[in-house]
Amino acid sequence: MSSATPYEQLEQEFRRLHAFRGALALLRWDAAVMMPRGSADVRGEQIAALESECHTLLIAPRLSRLLERAQANQQALEDWQQANLREMQRLRDHAFATPVALIQRMARATTRAEAAWFEARRQRDFGLLAPQLDEVIKLVRDKAALLARHLNLDPYDALADEFTPGMLSTDFDKIFTALSRRLPELTIEVGELQAARPPLPIQGRFGGSKQRALCVEVMKALGFPFDRGRFDESEQALSEGVPGDMRVTARLDRADPFTGLLGALHETGQAMYDLGLPQAWRDQPVGKARGMALEESQSLLLEQIVGRSRPFVAYLRPLLEKHFGVSGPEWEPDNLYRRLTTVRRSLVRVEADELTYPLHIMLRYELEQQLLSGELRTRDLPAAWNEQVQRRLRLTPADDLEGCLQDPHWAIGSFGYFPAYVLGSVVAAQLWEALREERPGLDEAIARGEFSSLMSWLRENVHALGAKVGVPELVQLATGKPLSASAFLRYVERKYTAGG
Amino acid sequence: MSSATPYEQLEQEFRRLHAFRGALALLRWDAAVMMPRGSADVRGEQIAALESECHTLLIAPRLSRLLERAQANQQALEDWQQANLREMQRLRDHAFATPVALIQRMARATTRAEAAWFEARRQRDFGLLAPQLDEVIKLVRDKAALLARHLNLDPYDALADEFTPGMLSTDFDKIFTALSRRLPELTIEVGELQAARPPLPIQGRFGGSKQRALCVEVMKALGFPFDRGRFDESEQALSEGVPGDMRVTARLDRADPFTGLLGALHETGQAMYDLGLPQAWRDQPVGKARGMALEESQSLLLEQIVGRSRPFVAYLRPLLEKHFGVSGPEWEPDNLYRRLTTVRRSLVRVEADELTYPLHIMLRYELEQQLLSGELRTRDLPAAWNEQVQRRLRLTPADDLEGCLQDPHWAIGSFGYFPAYVLGSVVAAQLWEALREERPGLDEAIARGEFSSLMSWLRENVHALGAKVGVPELVQLATGKPLSASAFLRYVERKYTAGG
Repeated sequence: MSSATPYEQLEQEFRRLHAFRGALALLRWDAAVMMPRGSADVRGEQIAALESECHTLLIAPRLSRLLERAQANQQALEDWQQANLREMQRLRDHAFATPVALIQRMARATTRAEAAWFEARRQRDFGLLAPQLDEVIKLVRDKAALLARHLNLDPYDALADEFTPGMLSTDFDKIFTALSRRLPELTIEVGELQAARPPLPIQGRFGGSKQRALCVEVMKALGFPFDRGRFDESEQALSEGVPGDMRVTARLDRADPFTGLLGALHETGQAMYDLGLPQAWRDQPVGKARGMALEESQSLLLEQIVGRSRPFVAYLRPLLEKHFGVSGPEWEPDNLYRRLTTVRRSLVRVEADELTYPLHIMLRYELEQQLLSGELRTRDLPAAWNEQVQRRLRLTPADDLEGCLQDPHWAIGSFGYFPAYVLGSVVAAQLWEALREERPGLDEAIARGEFSSLMSWLRENVHALGAKVGVPELVQLATGKPLSASAFLRYVERKYTAGG
Repeated sequence: MSSATPYEQLEQEFRRLHAFRGALALLRWDAAVMMPRGSADVRGEQIAALESECHTLLIAPRLSRLLERAQANQQALEDWQQANLREMQRLRDHAFATPVALIQRMARATTRAEAAWFEARRQRDFGLLAPQLDEVIKLVRDKAALLARHLNLDPYDALADEFTPGMLSTDFDKIFTALSRRLPELTIEVGELQAARPPLPIQGRFGGSKQRALCVEVMKALGFPFDRGRFDESEQALSEGVPGDMRVTARLDRADPFTGLLGALHETGQAMYDLGLPQAWRDQPVGKARGMALEESQSLLLEQIVGRSRPFVAYLRPLLEKHFGVSGPEWEPDNLYRRLTTVRRSLVRVEADELTYPLHIMLRYELEQQLLSGELRTRDLPAAWNEQVQRRLRLTPADDLEGCLQDPHWAIGSFGYFPAYVLGSVVAAQLWEALREERPGLDEAIARGEFSSLMSWLRENVHALGAKVGVPELVQLATGKPLSASAFLRYVERKYTAGG
């Protein structure tokens, strides 16, 4: 019927997958931004049907046959095509390792566990979640074992592969050990330094349309293309869509204009990554972002490193006056900078700053490995959690709500996902160090609201690589150095103990 | 693998189709309302992939086998299930009769013809479109012949079946003949009557948010559920979505608040139809609206019959004052009513009123049949068009732009679609006559802004039937009388010669 080669037929199949995934992204964006409240059930059916279609496409016997035939003739392919074939195989393996029966059992178990999680939070009692969570963990073990066999990895590494392709626990361990040696002490020191001179508070109401105008102006300066993308308000910040139709949203807080702006920066970082992916491969697996950790690195680079820097605050100062008509000592750059870089040890991950965030993640990383291996029994989680919090943050949760009930991730079956957050910070800092060396005058440019030098470096050295190589190789190629925590540690040391 | 009966397996397949169609509706709504300009190509790919998936599902050999097996055992099914099976078969037949190769040839030909149509309009010269249109007509003939064989209908009837299921040309002919006997004369008489006392003009600027608030208030009174639907502004009015998530839009004209309001009424009529479809069958073919003509009847009933009535204007008067702060003689009910019921013979279909609109359609209906049969050569269309316009409207187009170049329908391959417009008017008037008899006090209720009596009659007698029977049977069941033009003629006679 077709004179196309097996490889070409595969490209055709993955083009369909790309179109379905694009439709799914739009359905999700609409659900977050536009959809009437009562329509969630209908939308759920549409999303489930499309996701099931994507899964069916990947596990079809025809696709596996085509992969085998294309691999047999691999030497005829160019290197991008070979990398594409590897990514195709990886997607197929992930799909194969999550058979429909397991997905359905997992859906039922996580639905029950999520409901139990809400109730346990209400009563501040982990005991009410323990049996349901135990059930989820058993299923996650099954999934990890299946994935491990297909991907030829250890079970935990197989789960993490979805988010941090190419990274192993041993890689995480090295990074986390380096961070553990310095961060707990550093947070104490910085806390004491900052307590001596707290920033002046800001006051006022910051209307939605003014905040949107500010976000749009900053996004335009960053190069976000509004002819092929939108910015909207939503309950939770997100970046959805495909290159060619990117949808960025942020949650706007009428009492604090920085919540929305920093959220917009975060999501714009990810959107600019997607926009910078190799155009020729945009509908193929190799043309996608290199996993959640790299996306997070692009988000954090803009939100934390750029957005909370002295040059950016200098750029921001007149914009705040223009959009909100504010002035006074609390709006001066030095005060704003101190406000945006305040470090505070707290019990709650989502309230953490860039210095304490990794500590929250590391404790989860250790505990989820122990839960999966069985070393830690589910019912013993609260005690283990509290011990970790004490050791890493020197704080004590008053109850389970402040402790191990704060995140929904495990109840909904997300294991192996947390490390990607820290990896995002670490990669961002390493990229930042390299790009500052290669692009002198960056601070002055940012202070003038000129971001093209910054963005073009990221495009050339990160975005344009797509998913051609794994995370460690990508970082090595972009920075000339092996991936490690040292740049991050240098960055936080300078920023938080030497005045930024 | 499955213990489900063939019929149950079919329901499962069509549930998937329903989910895909729902996703498609959302993609289209977004393209019309939210999408950035530059994203049309990306959206086009997504829509094409999903439409192709729907087509593939319908022409799959497995589906045909299941249909055969289910039909062999049909006596075991309830009547709704049997009707559902008939609709499944009908959808399959339509899909089968439009093979992918023909769809692709048609796509290429209509793309060329649409471009030629724009150029021909620019130069006001049909000659520039004739060759491309000829090519399209040849392909439409192929499609009609294929459809005719599959549906066991005449070629033109096979094309029209998509929009007016259960109607034949002979049915249209009877209706159009009855209308032709009276409408041309009537439009002249009414025109003279009205010319003697033209309405006072309205003036002012009517802001978008005020117009939206008015539309929302009226839609709420009609029972539109805003917890499972939205109203937005767009370039063209539309109603998209599925019951459970209905999206209504209207084009708002800042110089005329009635454009938006009547557009919203039109689309709300169709949306309320979809919302009233039998809930138990909502994801099955039998649970869909009974084709475009019936949808149009629901739209026109609200927009033309209710929206341009004295009771509705009485309800509207205080709302206009509330939302726009307007008053004065031009805003009095009698003047507004005369404004909304002005009849004017014109050359352009989209500017026509409910009295002249059928005349525009009838000429297109005759000409498209002649073009398809070959009786009329494509290049002779302008002369034939102008002759028809003279005969039916007593007007003469100055050039082809005012004549046969005004609609894009034929250039994009839409044949058999026009009659559904008139059928919509005729059905709306017949339903209206029956419902007025069964629901006394309707005028007074409407004048008070109470629409529940009206809407519940439509729901029980029209919406709740879904696609269980064809158009003629549905009208017979709802009104107790065979479908004919008489109610429409009585309606316009009373409204336009006896003061409404």
